[in-house]
Amino acid sequence: MTQANKKHVSKYQDTHHKKFPVGTKGIWVDEKTEGKYSLINEEISLPAAVIKQQSIDNNLNWMQQFANHHSVKLSPHGKTTMTPAFFEQQLKAGAWGLTVATAPHAEVAAAAGAKHIMMANQLVGKANMAMIKRLLTQHDINFYCCVDSQANAEQLSEYFASSGVTVQVLIEFGVEGGRCGCRTPEQVVSLAQYIDALPGITLAGIEVYEGVIHGDNAEQAIRNFLATTVKTVEQLKENGLIHLDRPIVTGAGSAWYDVVAESFTDCQHLLAIIRPGCYLIHDTGIYQDAQNNVMARAQTNQGYACDLGGDLESALEVWAYVISRPEPGKAVIALGKRDVAFDAGLPIPERGYRDGKSIEVGGLQATAIMDQHTFVTVPEGRELHVGDVIAFSTSHPCLTFDKWKYICIADEEHQVTSVVETCF
Amino acid sequence: MTQANKKHVSKYQDTHHKKFPVGTKGIWVDEKTEGKYSLINEEISLPAAVIKQQSIDNNLNWMQQFANHHSVKLSPHGKTTMTPAFFEQQLKAGAWGLTVATAPHAEVAAAAGAKHIMMANQLVGKANMAMIKRLLTQHDINFYCCVDSQANAEQLSEYFASSGVTVQVLIEFGVEGGRCGCRTPEQVVSLAQYIDALPGITLAGIEVYEGVIHGDNAEQAIRNFLATTVKTVEQLKENGLIHLDRPIVTGAGSAWYDVVAESFTDCQHLLAIIRPGCYLIHDTGIYQDAQNNVMARAQTNQGYACDLGGDLESALEVWAYVISRPEPGKAVIALGKRDVAFDAGLPIPERGYRDGKSIEVGGLQATAIMDQHTFVTVPEGRELHVGDVIAFSTSHPCLTFDKWKYICIADEEHQVTSVVETCF
Repeated sequence: MTQANKKHVSKYQDTHHKKFPVGTKGIWVDEKTEGKYSLINEEISLPAAVIKQQSIDNNLNWMQQFANHHSVKLSPHGKTTMTPAFFEQQLKAGAWGLTVATAPHAEVAAAAGAKHIMMANQLVGKANMAMIKRLLTQHDINFYCCVDSQANAEQLSEYFASSGVTVQVLIEFGVEGGRCGCRTPEQVVSLAQYIDALPGITLAGIEVYEGVIHGDNAEQAIRNFLATTVKTVEQLKENGLIHLDRPIVTGAGSAWYDVVAESFTDCQHLLAIIRPGCYLIHDTGIYQDAQNNVMARAQTNQGYACDLGGDLESALEVWAYVISRPEPGKAVIALGKRDVAFDAGLPIPERGYRDGKSIEVGGLQATAIMDQHTFVTVPEGRELHVGDVIAFSTSHPCLTFDKWKYICIADEEHQVTSVVETCF
Repeated sequence: MTQANKKHVSKYQDTHHKKFPVGTKGIWVDEKTEGKYSLINEEISLPAAVIKQQSIDNNLNWMQQFANHHSVKLSPHGKTTMTPAFFEQQLKAGAWGLTVATAPHAEVAAAAGAKHIMMANQLVGKANMAMIKRLLTQHDINFYCCVDSQANAEQLSEYFASSGVTVQVLIEFGVEGGRCGCRTPEQVVSLAQYIDALPGITLAGIEVYEGVIHGDNAEQAIRNFLATTVKTVEQLKENGLIHLDRPIVTGAGSAWYDVVAESFTDCQHLLAIIRPGCYLIHDTGIYQDAQNNVMARAQTNQGYACDLGGDLESALEVWAYVISRPEPGKAVIALGKRDVAFDAGLPIPERGYRDGKSIEVGGLQATAIMDQHTFVTVPEGRELHVGDVIAFSTSHPCLTFDKWKYICIADEEHQVTSVVETCF
């Protein structure tokens, strides 16, 4: 292995602030003694990704209360933020553990202090298994990964049996036309029998991801699917194929967590776990739409979401400058695909500032995004100058987060009080 | 400022290899003494982003020769890779300087040793200006940024004049319906006169980005636009509005660099600079299409691209596992929007491996991508197992690069010989 990388790491970390490597976007330039950096007064380089701490606190508690009410465990999906500082806050607020998508993610979850780590995905490949073996031998954790094929069960068995470690697995149960997962309860039982005969691997329960079920009757289809899931877990337990006292049943992305929690609420003989991830950051796009559906269902079904009080809040903003007004109806913003999600709607102008004072941004609308630029239409009569600052809300927080090594944490006055590191 | 970030940096860097923080995707797990890590033999955790060094070398020299032949300077756009190791290779191969999109990018370019740094974008905002002031006072560099408004010229003048530093600017010249830039030569001259009267700011030339010109007669429209650009630079020089002996004229993204180089080749009284970026990595999608057009134009126009010999090669692959075969015609790959560009075509299966041996991947096609998964259709009769490895080529290299903190460098046997760090 050459020394090229090492050389760069050191070279690009010592010129600038000790804390941040050279070229870190969205941080302050001059160290202050006072400790807060005003976004409005341009003390942070823009574009910057900014989290409103108050909204995070709200969302953290809202979802934990929701899970507690239904007597299900909350294992937030960490893939959204991959931010250890937030993982720690989620665990502190009462999360049972953390859900992850990959072996490297699991390492981050363990380092953040999670004692239960669920990889809601298949663990495939020697190097990925080696990471998990290292985790299991170096940390006092319960780790679970998904399996949906004999081939993968064999690969896990071979690797872990020869390592002298046993890996706990969940059989993934899916639907025709969906993503991963056995397609029928019979396939689940058959795979469970197969696993039961293998060394180095032990079955802990069933994992589902109901988010791939669509259509006009999605809610009922999901309720039916979850009922089948619960029955199948019970059958596996009765058949002696799960050796835990309380077999695991787990589901729920960020769109149907209410239906999953309701479906699991009477399963106290099982360890029922929901895994929403985006709730912590939320948005003003696809997840706001999903949450509106949660609230609508709660009104129809006497669900708990309405009784709980309050609601999830969009916690993430991306702040950026107007850099050009080339034509009367057009503004160009220094914000691009390198900075913000664009696959589920473009960023939405929420507030504006000029020389530290609020300006009107009503009617501004993002119409196109390029690698480093966003086009915004400007209605006739609306003043918008080069140098004006716009705070945008976003849709699909995951794909904004993974564009940033550091995310600003701001208070209610839009002052940055700290910076957290992402681990993508 | 809290110590939260500092704590995380240290905590997440010491558990694992000293070189890599915990949770680093696409790297080896166990240190080897021999120094090479075989992708085919699964010694690297997948998914991994992999650069073929031989292709980088080819592309580096191809484009440098192309620029040299036309007597134009090459200032590669660094936004594509933001990888200092590649910046150094580009400079060593003869690049005049580096082009960047933001102030933080400029810091990385300077740290990589660039003596000429062109920000092909407007420099807006106090903190961004402060970064550039720091660069200008701490490094022996020539820095240029773009201006297309009196407002921005004033802001720059005010900031830099009060800092006792002079910033060199290029007036951006654009087209109606395009991105940034003055829309007419008259606006350019008027802005040049405005700048000439301001302290702390000095005009060095004109910058264009011809990539926003589309339509059936795009080539001729671009040639006309470039001719107007050259005339306007000459006029500014004649009018005493540019004080350099050789005013700068610069254009060229990765699609029309041939037309720009041809348009600038007789401008030896000017400092003519082209700024392609994607050529270094290239792809099998939109930039391959663009390069096919370059080659087609060379055949029609007796351009140099055909005479030069060879061609750009796609240097980037993303390697990933088949993790599920839930239905006969469907495979699920552990590769998602968090790992690879998806805005200009999905990743393309190029080669496959099973137990260290090649397998056939003809007919496999990516049909959908989610945050952590890609769906691939499998033709009837094609064997594809859970655990098989697929090497995908990609379209739009920029948006794959910014998903990775570390990129593997591989030799012709797909052995990883080193790892380079990105600075997004």
